[in-house]
Amino acid sequence: MKFTEMNREALLCEYEKLCAEYDGYKAAGLSLDLSRGKPCTEQLDLSDGLLNCPLDSSDYVGEGGFDYRNYGMLTGIPEIKRIFADALGLDEKTMIIGGNSSLNLMYDAIARYFIFGKLGEKPWSKYDKIKFICPVPGYDRHFRILETFGIEMICVDMLSDGPDMDRVEQIAMQDDTVKGIICVPKYSNPTGITFSDKVVERMCSMKTAASDFTVIWDNAYAIHDFTDTPDTLACVFDIAKKHGTENRFLYFTSTSKITYPGAGVSLVSASKPVYDEIAAHMGTQTIGHDKLNQVRHVKFLRDANGLCEMMKKQAEIVRPHFEIAEEALSVGLGGLGIADWHNPNGGYFISLNLMDGTATKVFNLMKAAGVTLTSVGATYPYGKDPHDSNLRLAPTYPSLDELSKAMQVLVCTVKLVCAKKILGV
Amino acid sequence: MKFTEMNREALLCEYEKLCAEYDGYKAAGLSLDLSRGKPCTEQLDLSDGLLNCPLDSSDYVGEGGFDYRNYGMLTGIPEIKRIFADALGLDEKTMIIGGNSSLNLMYDAIARYFIFGKLGEKPWSKYDKIKFICPVPGYDRHFRILETFGIEMICVDMLSDGPDMDRVEQIAMQDDTVKGIICVPKYSNPTGITFSDKVVERMCSMKTAASDFTVIWDNAYAIHDFTDTPDTLACVFDIAKKHGTENRFLYFTSTSKITYPGAGVSLVSASKPVYDEIAAHMGTQTIGHDKLNQVRHVKFLRDANGLCEMMKKQAEIVRPHFEIAEEALSVGLGGLGIADWHNPNGGYFISLNLMDGTATKVFNLMKAAGVTLTSVGATYPYGKDPHDSNLRLAPTYPSLDELSKAMQVLVCTVKLVCAKKILGV
Repeated sequence: MKFTEMNREALLCEYEKLCAEYDGYKAAGLSLDLSRGKPCTEQLDLSDGLLNCPLDSSDYVGEGGFDYRNYGMLTGIPEIKRIFADALGLDEKTMIIGGNSSLNLMYDAIARYFIFGKLGEKPWSKYDKIKFICPVPGYDRHFRILETFGIEMICVDMLSDGPDMDRVEQIAMQDDTVKGIICVPKYSNPTGITFSDKVVERMCSMKTAASDFTVIWDNAYAIHDFTDTPDTLACVFDIAKKHGTENRFLYFTSTSKITYPGAGVSLVSASKPVYDEIAAHMGTQTIGHDKLNQVRHVKFLRDANGLCEMMKKQAEIVRPHFEIAEEALSVGLGGLGIADWHNPNGGYFISLNLMDGTATKVFNLMKAAGVTLTSVGATYPYGKDPHDSNLRLAPTYPSLDELSKAMQVLVCTVKLVCAKKILGV
Repeated sequence: MKFTEMNREALLCEYEKLCAEYDGYKAAGLSLDLSRGKPCTEQLDLSDGLLNCPLDSSDYVGEGGFDYRNYGMLTGIPEIKRIFADALGLDEKTMIIGGNSSLNLMYDAIARYFIFGKLGEKPWSKYDKIKFICPVPGYDRHFRILETFGIEMICVDMLSDGPDMDRVEQIAMQDDTVKGIICVPKYSNPTGITFSDKVVERMCSMKTAASDFTVIWDNAYAIHDFTDTPDTLACVFDIAKKHGTENRFLYFTSTSKITYPGAGVSLVSASKPVYDEIAAHMGTQTIGHDKLNQVRHVKFLRDANGLCEMMKKQAEIVRPHFEIAEEALSVGLGGLGIADWHNPNGGYFISLNLMDGTATKVFNLMKAAGVTLTSVGATYPYGKDPHDSNLRLAPTYPSLDELSKAMQVLVCTVKLVCAKKILGV
């Protein structure tokens, strides 16, 4: 029964029980953490083969006799490009392999257009103000880059199949200082939603006032499925080609959550003209990224199939974490009318939407009970959740026992705060 | 005897012999390369221990129980900072470990000050024009970064103990749009000269019109000695402290020529305020660089002593290359009054200064004979050698046999071109 439909006496009784339950958790001196979207130790152990991966000349002397220990091969080695191309449906000829961080490639892209402009257009720094569209809730590190560059962020709601495209189209079309949109199109951080084919089509076909409009397509969870019914994301470059808008897209991903967050490889893929421009700038910027780590990844992952096998093993570990979290939410909060969420088929997060004006209270009470959540507001530009309602849950890192306990506390706390609000006590 | 002091008949006779000798080389169908300042295979083989360096939890779980396979430790792991601090006399608390490329750290530094300014000062992009002082001849990749950002490069001659500091001081003091100087203070690329204590002192003590004046101190060859009489470079931060100018310096180096150009680690070291600012920006820019490659380097190099031992082994390989090149120059060109050069105690280059207006001709004839040299002008801003006189020789990469042959062709060609010029034929 919905909390709002319970009579006051019954809800008050429930509230008192919840207070007692919460006090019990608080007294237990817990130290739990649901804030960190990072792999657990068991996941990291899957890539131990990278730690024990002796390389000899048959590995580091690549195609064409090139010694990967030395200078050269600015955009990465062909062997790793091929794996990513096969696994992700990308063109290896217009792919650049980065270092450990795809975020760094995104930052560099924004910085490059800011200083030098895109494909001959006016540098973004020459405008009084430029703007980016930000589907919300979204990824705090994305927002932080945009905020650092002084780029105004325009929020657009995430719907069940991606951003509200009516709004996105309207904003992109009316103002040539709107220079782009930043998004995670598959298993979006934090909603877990994947953009529908219709949304991808509209991203490619929409008219934009700015000819240098850029979509930061952060496909961080491209192959990070963990159920038997994975989402599928349309191949954006195929569709963009139909509409002649390939130059609009910068596609990023990395192995941070395939092998190691601390020692992976990243990539950016683009149309030929956009790739050429990035590669030319890279020739000024760097002598190139670590090629031996690319070699190690090639030897360890072998090919696109090897990559898929790795993701199946990752899924086996990740799935139980999500099952525990989802079960706790479903049993504990289902039907109460105080919270909703989406059970994702992949990715790293569950986005929990509470009654307006309750998220900070839940966060604080959780903290007082020894359970750390992602800061409220982190999922919104400027750290401000306009409804004070969104919590991002990251179930992968804690052990299953810790997770169960943390979810128990969360369910109790959410109910407590919402009951209190409804009761006005 | 100097060519200019020979009588015309004798020089003509010499010239004809040189033409015949040159034609012989040209007919031989050579394919040699003196252009690339990169380690030879034997040098790379010294670091094979990095290729066979299995890591287990005793390696990747670091000080404080941190799992280096995962996210975190933005500025690098303490274990590798300690090695660099000990070996280079730097403060590990204000050091940032980068990826494979220290050039990338330099580019990022320029980009950061360009967009955001340094320590609260006006961003460099907000000036109509800013300028940097460039000791010449210098490093082409430095010049390329500055040119890309539209920074005007003011050339100052390298003297026998570093840049002409009278000029540097004059330029830095008179104009607050002069924002810095870019240099290689030890075994300078390409001159091989190390800045004297006096020069370092003046770099630290000089008055600059710009309060955000920045010295890009690219100490790429910090420990890259190959003779028994290595140069010593004063520790710039110690001296800067005396003068209260620590914020002026950004100290860069890397293991590109210690372990691998294709898979090393780089660093930037700075004063506490400058470090704090870089680290804060880095928190927006990246999730951090490859920590396992840092671990691998720690395990392989062990400590500062291990680093020194490695450099002794490198020296054993590099020295004979320089000896061959220097012997060829000395025997072939000594006393002819047509070329001068400095025999360095370390680094990667010999800078050969020819009679004005002959370098391009030498380059072209060498190319026609199958020997590639670094492009003439590469050692000057905008690729323009005002005297058409400087050639950068890189003796490390070719085999000793190839190097001998290439030097033979070079000596013949230099003599030929200079004789021709003097004769006016």
